[in-house]
Amino acid sequence: MPHDGLPAGIHEIPPRSGVAFTLEAGQVLTVIDPRGEQVADLLAFNRHDLDEVISSGRTLDYASRLFLTTGDPLYSNRSNVMLRIVEDQVGRHDFLLTPCSADTFRIIYGDTHPHRGCFGNLADALGPYGIGPDRIPIAFNVFMNVRVDGDTGALTVAPPLSRAGDYVRFRAEQDLVVGLTACSALQSNNHSFKPIHYRID
Amino acid sequence: MPHDGLPAGIHEIPPRSGVAFTLEAGQVLTVIDPRGEQVADLLAFNRHDLDEVISSGRTLDYASRLFLTTGDPLYSNRSNVMLRIVEDQVGRHDFLLTPCSADTFRIIYGDTHPHRGCFGNLADALGPYGIGPDRIPIAFNVFMNVRVDGDTGALTVAPPLSRAGDYVRFRAEQDLVVGLTACSALQSNNHSFKPIHYRID
Repeated sequence: MPHDGLPAGIHEIPPRSGVAFTLEAGQVLTVIDPRGEQVADLLAFNRHDLDEVISSGRTLDYASRLFLTTGDPLYSNRSNVMLRIVEDQVGRHDFLLTPCSADTFRIIYGDTHPHRGCFGNLADALGPYGIGPDRIPIAFNVFMNVRVDGDTGALTVAPPLSRAGDYVRFRAEQDLVVGLTACSALQSNNHSFKPIHYRID
Repeated sequence: MPHDGLPAGIHEIPPRSGVAFTLEAGQVLTVIDPRGEQVADLLAFNRHDLDEVISSGRTLDYASRLFLTTGDPLYSNRSNVMLRIVEDQVGRHDFLLTPCSADTFRIIYGDTHPHRGCFGNLADALGPYGIGPDRIPIAFNVFMNVRVDGDTGALTVAPPLSRAGDYVRFRAEQDLVVGLTACSALQSNNHSFKPIHYRID
């Protein structure tokens, strides 16, 4: 066991932070919620052409479903499959809302000195790969529990359904640059900020 | 009345086609469904910085509502208000799905020689403004009636609620480049392709 106390192969994203890394086509990314009720925002870009990026609009349209789970592909803006969910222990994730940001906290929470949020964390982590903040789209919000009222369209952010140790596994279908966070929004994480773990196999 | 038979100031977008034009901040765009049950995909870009673009994720998050109507702002990826809905005679529009495309028709309808769809029409119309196809995000789909099952997340494309002559008015809050179509997808338009009208005041 490495001296950081994590099992071999497990990486930790500290609370309210984010990372970026590459995946080869065929590799499997496991996103783990080590303590439960913690969201992770996931972005993906084609490593060989960064203008190809994960697309909620394409994915939801082709799935004809808001809630994605085992077997579902995540499409790019060019309608290619970027990732596929190969195992899902939770079954409720969000693909509607953009990463939380200083503006989110200012507009929704009324913060006067807002945190930079997942948006700022992703921009910082993806910058070295040549991906600017304006290129950050709607993320696949792993474990995020957004309830939808089909009649009124009202959206409610509820506590995640994930319990300690629950995970989701994604297989890369392209060579990718991935951004991943431990989400920074109070409401999304049942009002406490926790780490996210991940591994690459 | 001009010789094209349209009332003065009214522009027509023929079935399955699209246009692009500029708006000054403060101008009002009226999108009219002249025959009823016809969708128009709407995109907006900051005319002075094309990397600022309409964002469904920001807009839905700040509204906490899927269905937008009179009074609602449409936000950019930078959390600035680009357009505001100032009058809405229909009350049901979609902001979930990307513009239909050759890939849409191939994947969903199984077409072997697909039409280029709203995506191709928007790319063609926006190209002269320096906006490439990879920059086309989820559109505000005026009059599109996407029903959502809050329990299962199932999305169903139903006939638009718009009747002949119904319109929606948007005030530009920035100087904009706007893309606008008469939508090309059978299901979205109750299985017939009709024109869209618009005027700028």
